[in-house]
Amino acid sequence: MRIYEKRIEKCKKLMARSGFDLVILFPSPNMYYFSGFKEEPGERMLLLLIPIKNKPVFIASELYQEHIRRDSSIQNVQIWKDSDSPRRLLQNIIKGMELKYSKVLIDDTMGALFLLPLQKILQDCEFVPASKIISSLRIRKSETEIENMKRASLIVDGIFNIITKMKIKGMTELELAARMEYEMKKMGSGNIAFETIVASGTNSAIPHHRAGNRIIKEGDVVVLDYGCKVNGYCSDITRTIICGKPSDKVRKVYDIVQRAQEKAFQAVKSGVAVEEIDRIAREEISKEGFDNRFIHRTGHGIGLEVHEEPYIVEGNNLKLEEGMTFSIEPGIYLPGEFGIRIEDIVLVTSKGGKRLNKCSHELKA
Amino acid sequence: MRIYEKRIEKCKKLMARSGFDLVILFPSPNMYYFSGFKEEPGERMLLLLIPIKNKPVFIASELYQEHIRRDSSIQNVQIWKDSDSPRRLLQNIIKGMELKYSKVLIDDTMGALFLLPLQKILQDCEFVPASKIISSLRIRKSETEIENMKRASLIVDGIFNIITKMKIKGMTELELAARMEYEMKKMGSGNIAFETIVASGTNSAIPHHRAGNRIIKEGDVVVLDYGCKVNGYCSDITRTIICGKPSDKVRKVYDIVQRAQEKAFQAVKSGVAVEEIDRIAREEISKEGFDNRFIHRTGHGIGLEVHEEPYIVEGNNLKLEEGMTFSIEPGIYLPGEFGIRIEDIVLVTSKGGKRLNKCSHELKA
Repeated sequence: MRIYEKRIEKCKKLMARSGFDLVILFPSPNMYYFSGFKEEPGERMLLLLIPIKNKPVFIASELYQEHIRRDSSIQNVQIWKDSDSPRRLLQNIIKGMELKYSKVLIDDTMGALFLLPLQKILQDCEFVPASKIISSLRIRKSETEIENMKRASLIVDGIFNIITKMKIKGMTELELAARMEYEMKKMGSGNIAFETIVASGTNSAIPHHRAGNRIIKEGDVVVLDYGCKVNGYCSDITRTIICGKPSDKVRKVYDIVQRAQEKAFQAVKSGVAVEEIDRIAREEISKEGFDNRFIHRTGHGIGLEVHEEPYIVEGNNLKLEEGMTFSIEPGIYLPGEFGIRIEDIVLVTSKGGKRLNKCSHELKA
Repeated sequence: MRIYEKRIEKCKKLMARSGFDLVILFPSPNMYYFSGFKEEPGERMLLLLIPIKNKPVFIASELYQEHIRRDSSIQNVQIWKDSDSPRRLLQNIIKGMELKYSKVLIDDTMGALFLLPLQKILQDCEFVPASKIISSLRIRKSETEIENMKRASLIVDGIFNIITKMKIKGMTELELAARMEYEMKKMGSGNIAFETIVASGTNSAIPHHRAGNRIIKEGDVVVLDYGCKVNGYCSDITRTIICGKPSDKVRKVYDIVQRAQEKAFQAVKSGVAVEEIDRIAREEISKEGFDNRFIHRTGHGIGLEVHEEPYIVEGNNLKLEEGMTFSIEPGIYLPGEFGIRIEDIVLVTSKGGKRLNKCSHELKA
């Protein structure tokens, strides 16, 4: 449990430096990061307060008492019942804290339903998204965190090997996605990292298409973008495969995306600005005339969240450091035709970039 | 598409009555309810603005352009690129709206990361959770909505029939949960409604335990709480089964929970206060001496969200109306021993309550 106490100590140091009195967390990766207690957001108020002066405290429905006792390193829990309102309890706890700076960090994902009443209770306080401080703690991964991410990456590699041996023609996108998620869980994924994307045919040209009732047909380009979790840590991979034979155009576009991915990967090194990674991938695609067809950033950080800092995007001049983990996932999308995307998760090491997922980029048809 | 326009018209009427200028929605069931466009919240700003005077407008990353065009009834989309900040765009759009009342409705689930900057842009406005208005629209379901919920309920019934024929002894909770989710998707669930709960042995005494690595053993009480979605509409069911032979104590507690569920169900009728349903279930459990072991409300509304209005809880004096749908799910939890919960979704009809899921309450061992 020492690991959670250390994280809280580090957080308090950063709070002191920037003049924050209090962090208010919601069921989120941040709550898990500081306590070991994992829960999904719900309509019941469930908060973790980390005040700079006092001890951290959970404010939770009675329903969670056993659960927090079992999983959390923080055992200081204030309980409310379904038949009460938690508001007065919260008010009293905050009153007892004697805030000094009147600056409060709020979990980025905390919804308006909870944030708006909190603002009334703390009406003289300035509210700032908690990522401002916490992401600087979470952005570099420890060895244990990397170990979990490697295990999660091994699973997605395994799934890809299963798919390339399967006959996917005739399956719906949803059937294939369901099968992939089932196999991930059987291989030890605690939960999937995000809704599995199976985008076939012209759907592959829609970067955030999920999976639908479309039946996979001969000749389809199929984008598979999926990830799982091990101890809360995510993997994420994209491979584009062809059901049948690829056309010359598909082959050509695939090669460009693959080159862009490889060049960007080769540029990963401690000290390089993250926007440089984006620029390199984009340049490779632009010089082939597809600059307006690569319509998203090159990547995103990953860890407890599937999307977190650092975002690999133009304008982000943050420097890469050892222990950072992020995706490199260029894509080209031709509306009404097809789309190609290739994604790996990369770890920054003393020797440059290291891919956490290992499966081949070779065009599978 | 007319259905979405009608919903927006109704919403605008309620806004006018309460003096709201604008609804700001986030990727959420509300966004889907008003536009037909379904997406998960992410770190990219994706908003739907419904101003009382002007036409609704999406503000979205270029990434979503194709997706919104395909799925949404609202085709007015303002696009920003990953390399830009969406903030200026948002500022200009809001400036063009000439707000009158300075009162804005905000999607309940919109996170601090987006809400805090919005409050800076609209600094003279009062922010109110959107559920204040929208839940009164969503709380009574149309025939089409009920049809979708029935289809989702048929699937969870089917899964229970599969499980009772399976040999679950020796499986881990996670394996069983994965199998249930896979079967739901194969039966046509678009996505699961929430992380499947398989709570075995002493875990069954933790109401919000999910599923873990515990192996299901002979004699275990196993709480199964799961749901799926059809066209965005949720089902939700809980059954408690025994792996092997139930002890006398398990049998006794099971009977009490079953009776509480049945009595509460029999009380469902248009015009009855929802807290009355809670009271009846609670009374049945209390008179057997387990009042401090039924540690949650009796139920929750369900529709596009698995938990929504009306909440079946003490103090909620809202009257039941035809078309409302909610769960009745009393439970008794004995820490360190076992827990029992039985849940059905109930629709209020002109003839009283109607269960949407049909599978038996008989103790399966």
